[in-house]
This record gives sequence, structure tokens and C-alpha cells, in this order.
Amino acid sequence: MAQKPSIPKGTRDFNPEQVAKRNYIFNNIRNAFQTFGFQPIETPSFENSDTLMGKYGEEGDRLIFKILNSGDYLSKANTEAYDEKNSNKLTPSISEKALRYDLTVPFARYVVQHQNEIEFPFKRYQIQPVWRADRPQKGRFREFFQCDADVVGSKSLWQEVEFIQLYDTVFSALKLDGVTIKINNRKILSGIAEVIGASDKLIDFTVALDKLDKIGEEKVKEEMLKKDIPQSGIDKLQPLFSLTGNFESQIKSLKSILASSTEGLKGVEELQFINKAIQELGLKTAVLQLDVTLARGLNYYTGAIFEVSAPKNVKMGSIGGGGRYDDLTGIFGMKDVSGVGISFGLDRIYLVLEELGLFPETVSKNIEVLFINFGDKEALFSLKAIKTLRENGINAELYPDAAKMKKQMNHANKREIPFVVLVGEQEIESNNYTLKNMVSGEQDNVSITTLIEKIK
Amino acid sequence: MAQKPSIPKGTRDFNPEQVAKRNYIFNNIRNAFQTFGFQPIETPSFENSDTLMGKYGEEGDRLIFKILNSGDYLSKANTEAYDEKNSNKLTPSISEKALRYDLTVPFARYVVQHQNEIEFPFKRYQIQPVWRADRPQKGRFREFFQCDADVVGSKSLWQEVEFIQLYDTVFSALKLDGVTIKINNRKILSGIAEVIGASDKLIDFTVALDKLDKIGEEKVKEEMLKKDIPQSGIDKLQPLFSLTGNFESQIKSLKSILASSTEGLKGVEELQFINKAIQELGLKTAVLQLDVTLARGLNYYTGAIFEVSAPKNVKMGSIGGGGRYDDLTGIFGMKDVSGVGISFGLDRIYLVLEELGLFPETVSKNIEVLFINFGDKEALFSLKAIKTLRENGINAELYPDAAKMKKQMNHANKREIPFVVLVGEQEIESNNYTLKNMVSGEQDNVSITTLIEKIK
Repeated sequence: MAQKPSIPKGTRDFNPEQVAKRNYIFNNIRNAFQTFGFQPIETPSFENSDTLMGKYGEEGDRLIFKILNSGDYLSKANTEAYDEKNSNKLTPSISEKALRYDLTVPFARYVVQHQNEIEFPFKRYQIQPVWRADRPQKGRFREFFQCDADVVGSKSLWQEVEFIQLYDTVFSALKLDGVTIKINNRKILSGIAEVIGASDKLIDFTVALDKLDKIGEEKVKEEMLKKDIPQSGIDKLQPLFSLTGNFESQIKSLKSILASSTEGLKGVEELQFINKAIQELGLKTAVLQLDVTLARGLNYYTGAIFEVSAPKNVKMGSIGGGGRYDDLTGIFGMKDVSGVGISFGLDRIYLVLEELGLFPETVSKNIEVLFINFGDKEALFSLKAIKTLRENGINAELYPDAAKMKKQMNHANKREIPFVVLVGEQEIESNNYTLKNMVSGEQDNVSITTLIEKIK
Repeated sequence: MAQKPSIPKGTRDFNPEQVAKRNYIFNNIRNAFQTFGFQPIETPSFENSDTLMGKYGEEGDRLIFKILNSGDYLSKANTEAYDEKNSNKLTPSISEKALRYDLTVPFARYVVQHQNEIEFPFKRYQIQPVWRADRPQKGRFREFFQCDADVVGSKSLWQEVEFIQLYDTVFSALKLDGVTIKINNRKILSGIAEVIGASDKLIDFTVALDKLDKIGEEKVKEEMLKKDIPQSGIDKLQPLFSLTGNFESQIKSLKSILASSTEGLKGVEELQFINKAIQELGLKTAVLQLDVTLARGLNYYTGAIFEVSAPKNVKMGSIGGGGRYDDLTGIFGMKDVSGVGISFGLDRIYLVLEELGLFPETVSKNIEVLFINFGDKEALFSLKAIKTLRENGINAELYPDAAKMKKQMNHANKREIPFVVLVGEQEIESNNYTLKNMVSGEQDNVSITTLIEKIK
């Protein structure tokens, strides 16, 4: 009954080296989350379908993995849908559960469900996999981890300040110097829409403006006109095309461009507050940049919008993002809970660190010393030493079989084990160990105490 | 569109304290795995259905969660099954993927799929959730974590010895003293079957024998007769009813009982080898016990069988188990790969540690110091200090809003934050911090250096 084994497309096996590298990133993110006062929660991998459906738009609903009911599920199938052979219509009657699509909606559900146990403001982090029935492509998978930190229950802008510091802390810890933390504000985008005189054209406008570097001012304007953005609006926003210089001078320009929009000005003020604080506090290696074209999930955010770009020498989409949303829990009937949060894109960060060679050499080091097995008597003597080594925090193991010496040494080489210990009759008699450094080839006859010292 | 939010039955939300306690267990297990030379792998949450189906028996197949195909899945539905409205028959045509049911079959699939990259013997560990559509009950969930360590590619009994040490190491590290590691051997069970003269009665025999302590010898024999175990067989195995004493004396009795069974004697020899090594090496807090009634997943194991019981003062099923299986990868067409492994039952270990009060008090300590927010100027000054504290590894945060002092202090109390720092005009002027110990109530005016020292 042999089968050629494989895994579903868009999913991955991780070998020991990959797990170690992923954990290196997870641990750095987790440490920073905790240092900043975030507390971990975990939610189930699948939720009731009605918790998830309708929360991510039509496209999202399609991409949610549904779990088939157990047992004779057809006995409760919607008869009409069954007769019509209508898949979409049938689904709710044969599937009650669905795999988590992101961590935000389950978090909102968690906050509402446990609101009486939670002390607000609630700073939570969550590092768990999510699943999407997306078409797999480079860097896009059907199962991937999200690493989210959010605060709910406060509108304070100090949180935006802290999230920028948090990004800086994590990427500095990962030695990924030179990331750009782009920031915008939904209210500025609303202001721009007001000035255009057509809020339904806002996305077209920002998408076109975003191409300024690539295709130049004239082409951008052409595209805007093609998208039915009125010439008068483009004229009014002319200064946006020459919005260069540092954060403060951009703020100044925006103030004059958006002078007629109360909401727009509010957004500018918020950015100014955040930028001033960051200037005072300083960033280790990241750069904060105002980017009025930044719009991510426009309908979702209500205040600050963040996106992090990898250093300029790496071609990669955003490696993190987030923002403020003023009605996270409204979908579950709990009003007026403002939230703000950020997310780290594990898979992309992994690719960037790999490309730049930033994983520490020791990251996937596992076993430190292998004892060669010369037979049962020697093995028992070895295991006594191994026990002591392990108690001293050294990862040690015995080759399980008394195989040929060459085979065992090859095993040590292939696994890149740095030390090998040889125990024969002579060593047992003198209660000593022959320690071989697999890199230098150096060989020593040592006591257990020296063994521990040398390996450590 | 308010919904009363809930989660699917058999699943759980974990709050920060629970996550911290679970991680405490995970970390102890993971550390021990690594010290013993096991390397981590991870496999996808869902596998192709044909990887999983048929591997766990009929009952298992029923309990596997199936994932509905995306899109217009009915267009490819098995027409005959559809017309018959036969759920079981329809499933394979509308569901190609299924959630992982355990970690063993995906591991077997991994080994076969990656056999050319793996250096054998391969010692892997895997800590990931699995899903079963079981009826939920106390301590049994539809989503739960398994923590497995296995070695494949060697038949050496030293591995059984090491797994016993590994159990002892983990439970000793968790301060769970007095667990019993029960051991048996499939070959001894085969020997017993031979002696009974009816191998199909083996399970009935061991199930009945297992009740010896509870119902006494006469009742056990009655039950055996009722199950059609011949009187002659019961007579031959009479010594099993008085199998008491230590490991060595039990071995002795077994040798004479199973004298006529070559396979049985082989099993006894294996146990003897393992026990002798463990006697030489010593266990920290666990006790190794021979238990001939131990049969877990009989058809699966071919050599040693393990099961770990919680200390006697706690009522709890097994908190770990495992054994040797000589044909792990055969189902995927790779022959002659012997494996041996053990598993830790996270949820039950959690319940035991909770019941015995064995979680360290500091396990769920998160934030160490909260800065009270008196306004923007003070907040900015505070954030500078917080930055320094965090760089020194101290978990620190600012209350995000300049709320009433009492509210902020209450927040610190409810979250059991041990220190609070107050920064007002005066502190800013003198570049000092008022540190309040929330437990003793003690209050000090200190420099940043002293602040770090006091909190650490």
C-alpha cells in the first residue's frame, strides 16, 4: 500500500535548521513584546464559522478554509442548495467551523467574550498560524504565522509612539539595520479625499501617487485623469507631488494643503505629536518616514497607519504593518473599544535575514558532543558521563549502535557536531575521556571536569 | 449585527496566565529534548487526506477533521454518492485535506519524503497541536498539543534507556517527583498469548489481569473464563497473579513462566538489559516499574512499551507514553526503519501541576514596573526612562492615558505589577524617579541607576 508522500500545496515542512531560524525570529519578537508589557493569549485554530464569515469581505470569505461537519453531515444539508448543487449555499449547512484567517478577528471575539475578566487597557500579543486558501506563490503560503501585538481600550497616541519603538527594538535586535517605518494617518487620507471632492476616488488617487518615483509626475497625473479624478482636485493637491524633505517639512506642507479639512488637520497633528516624541526618544537603527500614499486596508483603519520596509538593498514587500482601528469589537456588539496594533511578517523577515546572511552562525547548533559507541560496556560508561554533561547544560548524546568507527565519525561530521568523545577499555580503566575537536582535529585525554570545561 | 461570541466545543482560549503556565511546561520539555540531542521539525497543520486516512483504524478515520475543498467543490462531487446522499462516500470527492490527527503519521511521512536529506539515526522532536473530533470531556479536547520525541533508524536498546532518563529529567525539572514509569514489552505479551494458546484473547487477558488490584484473583479468573480463555492457559500463567516484588524478581518469574516462548524470553531479556542500565545510571525522582498488563496500542508497538503515571496522590490517567515500533514508515513504502519514541501529555501534566501547586509563583509574572501618566510632558520623560529599563531587560510600560491617579494605581494592582514609578514636575526637575513598591508600600526617590537596581 505504498504511497508517494507529499504535502498540500502552499504548506511546508520545516527541518531542524529552519525551525531553529524561525524560532530565533519568534524569540526576538516575543522578548520585545514582553519587554514592552504585552501579554500572550492563544485562541483555537478553528472558530465557529459565523465568527469569521463576513468579516474579511467577499474575497476573504472565499479564502477561509471550512471544516466539514463530522458524521452524517448530509443529513442536515440545506435541501434546496443540495437540489441546486449550489456549493456556496450548501456550505453553511454542512460546515460549522472554519480555520482562523487572521489573529485580529479572533482577538476581537476574545475581548468581547472575556470582557469581564480583562483589565483594560489590555496589551496582548499573539503568535499563531493562520490559514488562507490563497493561490500559493513565492513568499505566500496557505499556512503561515502571524505575530501581532495590540492594545485595546485607550486612544492615547503614546501607544503609536511605543509601537514605533517596538518595531525599532525588534529589527535592531535582529541586526536588520536600516528598515524604514512608514507612517500615515487615515484622517489625512480623508482630508485628501475631501480636497479632491470625491472620496470614492481616494484609492485610485493614492495608488497613482505611489507610482511617482517610478513613472514621474506627468504620467501619474494622466493616470489620475483616466480614473476620473477631476483636474481641479489634482491642482489643489499639486504640492503633494513635490512632498519631499524630512518629516517636519512634509508636515508643514500637509498643513497648508489640508488647511480646509478639519479631519485632515487632525491627522497632521497626530503625526506631528508622534514624530516629535520619536525625535526626542530616538530610534536605534530604524528610520521613521511620512508616506501619504500609505493606505493599507483603508476601511479598517481610523487613525495611524504603519508599514515597515526592508532595507533598501533588499527587494521585498512590507515586513510589517498595522494601525489604529476605532471599532475593533463592534462586530461582536461591544462598542467604543479603540485599538491599535502592529504585525510582523515572519516569512518575509526570514527571507530578508537569509538573503543578508543575518542569522547567527550558532542559531541551528544543536548537539555539542557525540560519544562514540564501542560496545555495551563502553556505552554504559559513556552514558554516565553524558548524564553529567546534560546536568551541566551541555547537549550530549551517545551513538546508539556499536557501528564501525568510520560510520560514527561520519555521522558526527554530517551533523556538524563540534566534539566527539571516544571511550575504550583504556579510558574506562583510567576513568578518563578522549576528546576530539572535530574542527581542529586536536585530541586530548581529559577528566570529566576538563571535559565539561572544554565543551562549554 | 451583534453576535454573542463563543468558541467551538472542545476548544479553548488561553489567557496570559494559562499561556505562561503552558509555556513553562513546553520549555522544560523542549530543553530536555535538546539536551538529549533531539532536533525540532514542524509539519503542516493539514495533510493530504490520503496521508492520514486508514492509518488510525475506522474509529480514527471518523475522528479526523476534514477540510472542505475551496470554490465550487460540488462540481467535482462523486455523482453516485451525491445521488445516494451518502456522506462517507461523498467526502473524498469534496475534501482533499484533513487536519493532523497525531504527530506520528506526519513524522513517518516526513521521514519518507525527506529521506535523502536526513542523516540517520534521526532524533527528532515535535511540539504541535493535533485535532480530533472526539466527544469533549474533562481533560479531553478537540484541539490539543502533543510533545513527541522519536529516534528512527536504529534498533539499539540504549535508546529505550535514554527515553526513561528523558522522562525522569523532564518530570524532575517540573518538580513532579514520584512519577512511575511503567514498562512492558510487546514480545512478552506475545509470549503470554503463546502460553494461553490463543493470541486473539491477549487483550481480554491483559484487560482482566489489570483489574487484579481492584477485584482480586478469583474475579479476574472468572472474567477470563467468561471471555473464553481456556482454563489450561490460566493455569499455566498462574504465577502472573502473584507477580510482585521488584523489577529483578519479576524478571525471574517471567523467565520461568515464558520458558517455552522464544519471543517471550527475548522480551524479558530486553527488559532486563534496560533495567540493569537504569539501575547503574540511576533516576532522579522517577521510579521504573515492570507492568505486564501494559498494552497501549498493542498492534502498533513491537518492542518496549512505556506509560507514565502521575504521583500516587493525584487521580489522573497516564501523563505520557510510547514505545518501539519496527515499521513506522512502511505505510509510505520505506521498509525496515525501526523507531522508538515517547510522548508527553501536556494537558494532563498541566492539571497535575495545578492540583499539586507546582507552578513557580513567578511563572506568569509579566510586567515589572508601570509608570503613572501625569500628562504629555511627564509621559515623554517617563518613556525615556522606560527605554533605558527595557534595554536593561526590565519589562516596563507607561499607562497610556493621563487618567486619574487612583484609576492608574488600581490598574497596577489588578495586574499585580510589583513596582510603580511616579514622575511629576519635581522629578523631572531633579531628574529623579519616585519608585513605589506595590507590595510593601515603601516609596523612594531614586536615580535611574538605582531604579534599575531596585527593580532587578
